[in-house]
Amino acid sequence: MLTRDHCIKMDRDDPLAKLRDEFYLEPDVIYLDGNSMGALPKRTAKKIGRTLDEEWGKGLIRSWGAADWYAMPETLGDRLGRLIGADEGQIVVCDTTSINIYKALRAAMQMRPDRGVIVSETSSFPTDLYMIEGAKSSNPTKYSTKLLGRDGSDIADLIDKNVAVILLSNVDYKTGKLHDMKRITDLAHNAGALIIWDLCHSAGVIPIELDNLGVDFAVGCTYKYLNSGPGSPAYIYVAKRHQDTAVSPLSGWWGHAEPFAFEAAYRPTTGVRRFLCGTQPVLSMKGIEASLDVFDQTNIHQIREKSQKLTRLFIDLAAQHPVCSSLEMVSPINDEDRGGHVSFRFENGYPVVKAMIEKGVIGDFRAPDIMRFGFAPYYLRYLDVYDAVETMAQCIEAEVWKIPKYCEMETVT
Amino acid sequence: MLTRDHCIKMDRDDPLAKLRDEFYLEPDVIYLDGNSMGALPKRTAKKIGRTLDEEWGKGLIRSWGAADWYAMPETLGDRLGRLIGADEGQIVVCDTTSINIYKALRAAMQMRPDRGVIVSETSSFPTDLYMIEGAKSSNPTKYSTKLLGRDGSDIADLIDKNVAVILLSNVDYKTGKLHDMKRITDLAHNAGALIIWDLCHSAGVIPIELDNLGVDFAVGCTYKYLNSGPGSPAYIYVAKRHQDTAVSPLSGWWGHAEPFAFEAAYRPTTGVRRFLCGTQPVLSMKGIEASLDVFDQTNIHQIREKSQKLTRLFIDLAAQHPVCSSLEMVSPINDEDRGGHVSFRFENGYPVVKAMIEKGVIGDFRAPDIMRFGFAPYYLRYLDVYDAVETMAQCIEAEVWKIPKYCEMETVT
Repeated sequence: MLTRDHCIKMDRDDPLAKLRDEFYLEPDVIYLDGNSMGALPKRTAKKIGRTLDEEWGKGLIRSWGAADWYAMPETLGDRLGRLIGADEGQIVVCDTTSINIYKALRAAMQMRPDRGVIVSETSSFPTDLYMIEGAKSSNPTKYSTKLLGRDGSDIADLIDKNVAVILLSNVDYKTGKLHDMKRITDLAHNAGALIIWDLCHSAGVIPIELDNLGVDFAVGCTYKYLNSGPGSPAYIYVAKRHQDTAVSPLSGWWGHAEPFAFEAAYRPTTGVRRFLCGTQPVLSMKGIEASLDVFDQTNIHQIREKSQKLTRLFIDLAAQHPVCSSLEMVSPINDEDRGGHVSFRFENGYPVVKAMIEKGVIGDFRAPDIMRFGFAPYYLRYLDVYDAVETMAQCIEAEVWKIPKYCEMETVT
Repeated sequence: MLTRDHCIKMDRDDPLAKLRDEFYLEPDVIYLDGNSMGALPKRTAKKIGRTLDEEWGKGLIRSWGAADWYAMPETLGDRLGRLIGADEGQIVVCDTTSINIYKALRAAMQMRPDRGVIVSETSSFPTDLYMIEGAKSSNPTKYSTKLLGRDGSDIADLIDKNVAVILLSNVDYKTGKLHDMKRITDLAHNAGALIIWDLCHSAGVIPIELDNLGVDFAVGCTYKYLNSGPGSPAYIYVAKRHQDTAVSPLSGWWGHAEPFAFEAAYRPTTGVRRFLCGTQPVLSMKGIEASLDVFDQTNIHQIREKSQKLTRLFIDLAAQHPVCSSLEMVSPINDEDRGGHVSFRFENGYPVVKAMIEKGVIGDFRAPDIMRFGFAPYYLRYLDVYDAVETMAQCIEAEVWKIPKYCEMETVT
């Protein structure tokens, strides 16, 4: 039986415990939605305050050079690369995940001109599928989509010589299930296709080896586990070997070889910077800088270790609790197959999650019946996990009798 | 002869003089580059501080609803509309100018499927031309570009029944020359073409009548005269009558009819919101909110009046100064034909602008020989204009003798 004291002891032994001080956290809140939007690092306010007063206020236009604003898409990209296994010069921070998906898709489609199939999966985060539609609209008669269903079939069956590009999330946003990145990247390459990995639900919480696996493109956001603030800019990874051939259809001046020469014709610059388009929001970029300063105090393997312990503890505590033990877990039971969040299916999940939020335990609900809880290892305590399960049990107990089938059972017994 | 005292008197009589207090300005700086990036409104720091502490820090994920983050692209768009003559429900604030150009171009191209010509002009800000190239890449054999040259020819000669869409800036970024928006919009429509106006160099300083002129699409940034901060998000206007037919190729989840239903197929929402794609940077969006609070204290006609007086004063002071009077002005001499900035051509313009910046008068240089000075009416005094001309004269005097032809003249006389 896991007890509250057991969790307190785990916190005492936690090498990452000190990181919690880096974040602003209300004392009466347990935040289990850092996988939707991370909590606020204390140093973010300081950094943005300085950007406002010193760089914008005093430096004015000069700060593009003097405060290195101009280089931020690359300098932040390089720093981010350390968390996802990318060597320098392959990532730029810019735009949104959706837009970067579009760039990568269109570039990949152009690199495989004789192929007309795009592979993804039904359970993708929907914007990935929507952006495929947008990318296909450039040549709707040529391109078609093949989607891996939810029926347990193997993606290998969809990949053949007609496939130009495969777009997948390595962590399922609903279930937290991990794809085998190495296997699928190899499958793609063996068929001559290119692969784009969407890292939104993994970057910052799971070690990723973009370079080692030979990934072609990757995209992701920075506002989930990367704690960079609401809507902070996304990023795109383009493997070095593709940087001369891959061309972005969003051919804006920031991707030009000489953006300040004001040439009439577009001439993409060398390197990953050609995947930039327009001017990036500096204040929101500074949120990424501040957050990476926090990540510099640890490493992704330590983070993954604590993440697995947190989700394991949550699963075990739910399993031993008389009220929660019958919940259907939709996340993988094996720690190695699971990302940073855990989801349960529950018919009255929506009012349960709502009631939990009112009691200060902030989780997430994904229609129609998924209660999703994310465990950010930087600021969550094992004790928080214990208290969250207790609160979840209270809220389920209050809701469960509103479900007809349970009412009937009650009547029968 | 215009004197310094004359300028001091103009400041005393200036109904917008009080707005200067709204901005953070260094006492020893005269900022003539607000048309590249506006100065910092004092209330911006306060608003962003509150967003950080209260909305992100305490509100966390709940602030998407509770703090109305979710609605910001539209609420800010509606407020912005008041400055550019757009009724509510036609503007969303999002992404970058370049990306919004792409959306508008692709949507317009699809709305005129039988036409293959895109018209713009050589003197466009280059990213506009680059984005045309990107948009054309969706069907390179179908589309071609016709550009208005710098030879004084008339755009009317380029517009015929083959033209799908015309993309123009209403203010030339180098010279400040204004296009006749009404005439060109009518020319486009008479030929059955659509028009996209790029308002980067006009919004916030010139009254624009998007609705009254029947404009189809417009785009612009918010970081120039709109003072919303480095790289703050851009906006796109889509006339109400086109909102059912115009479709963005960047079909992300934010433009979906039900973004949280997580449907597999893209189904664009009604209204201008379908031109949203991904999650916007909230902190940088707050810069727009703060800036619009400043604009609420005045109106665009008052602003235009002061803007014209400032540029007129600058031109007149330069003309009466023995050192500056021979400068070649490349901006229109007629107040009605000129935007908010004034440019002079000068062979050694680069070191002059550099020397001026060292003396605290921050202007801008555009290659190869344009010295460009912007006059933001919200925080500039007439006195600043006087002092700027004096500084410019000093710096020209120091540079002019380095130009071979002037050295020769000196030797001859």
